[in-house]
Amino acid sequence: MEFENYFPIWNKLTSADQATLKDAAVRRTAKAGTLLHNGEADCVGLLVVNKGQLRAYILSDEGREITIYRLFERDMCLFSASCMLSDIQFDIFIEAETDVEFWLIPTMVYKSIMDSSAAVANYTNQILSSRFSEVMWLMEQVLWKSFDKRLAAFLINESALAASDTIEMTHEKIASHLGTAREVVTRMLKYFQSEGMVKLSRGIVQLTDKDRLEALSAE
Amino acid sequence: MEFENYFPIWNKLTSADQATLKDAAVRRTAKAGTLLHNGEADCVGLLVVNKGQLRAYILSDEGREITIYRLFERDMCLFSASCMLSDIQFDIFIEAETDVEFWLIPTMVYKSIMDSSAAVANYTNQILSSRFSEVMWLMEQVLWKSFDKRLAAFLINESALAASDTIEMTHEKIASHLGTAREVVTRMLKYFQSEGMVKLSRGIVQLTDKDRLEALSAE
Repeated sequence: MEFENYFPIWNKLTSADQATLKDAAVRRTAKAGTLLHNGEADCVGLLVVNKGQLRAYILSDEGREITIYRLFERDMCLFSASCMLSDIQFDIFIEAETDVEFWLIPTMVYKSIMDSSAAVANYTNQILSSRFSEVMWLMEQVLWKSFDKRLAAFLINESALAASDTIEMTHEKIASHLGTAREVVTRMLKYFQSEGMVKLSRGIVQLTDKDRLEALSAE
Repeated sequence: MEFENYFPIWNKLTSADQATLKDAAVRRTAKAGTLLHNGEADCVGLLVVNKGQLRAYILSDEGREITIYRLFERDMCLFSASCMLSDIQFDIFIEAETDVEFWLIPTMVYKSIMDSSAAVANYTNQILSSRFSEVMWLMEQVLWKSFDKRLAAFLINESALAASDTIEMTHEKIASHLGTAREVVTRMLKYFQSEGMVKLSRGIVQLTDKDRLEALSAE
């Protein structure tokens, strides 16, 4: 539970930087559903997840959402401190998807260490590259994959995250993850149901043929 | 024309690193249409553009393309050395869109400097952030913008790049830039023509009402 165990390049920091970082990192908790970072409206700091799950998403002018990536235990969230990366020109929203515990590193503290430490700058680089890769993956999905395959992949992934074949989620919420309209999700889920791959009830999607869903998502 | 003038953080390098970089950077030229980086198949090195224009694109399994971003004079291309960023998990193709002149920095030379120099690591960060922003912009376009608006924005941008109201480009090529099929481009261009916004002839799109195209692209 010590901060240093959650910061993989701890041993590459000078002892002065270690002390600064440890002093500055504050432990925080947030309830599921809390908006932790609100686009360009704030620049809270970097979040190092200790427990729980965060969701990063973008928002259209019309209020439509799409999930960009998720963060889990030991992940560090850079974009809640995107003001330190002046070339980041987009707005991301970060939400606690479950109850979460995390450390908050104030932006300016991290930035000043990053300016002088090659290790921290390269670590930041590495995180940026990972998120970039997730976004490129999503871009390819959106561009080249039909919606039935994306929905099948989403259901398989959610079922793995929940460690259950029963996903408690409204069609509205699924649409927000996938960047589409509720009606589109409902129509496709009904088709999946008619094919025996899922069973639908209020706010619940039960996966009844995971093999076929998996095959579909891998197509 | 000296390399150091094209490397904005030159003064932040140690003189040893300056010497290494200057010795290692090789001047190269390539004809328009040359593929300079071929997905994961190679890891040529970093390209610093001296003259001309590069195009970065991704490719679907079916061979469909979409332009991700462009690089111009003074831009540095990281992804032609993406093997140095182990968390980059996607394949980008880099093509000379015009005849180009550039410096090639061998991957391992840059990487070894970046590992120890906070300035170079932060500069790399900054470039990564810029490209990330361009990809996020594109993602938002693809997700939330209808194709007429995207095509209008593309034509306006191409006309600015060519400094001309006449764009010499096949419908096939436009489709490759925008990640769609040729028929979709042809259909929309014919609609634009019927509305008096463009005039079409073989391999040529002439913009006849830029104000309306601009208004459409900004909607």
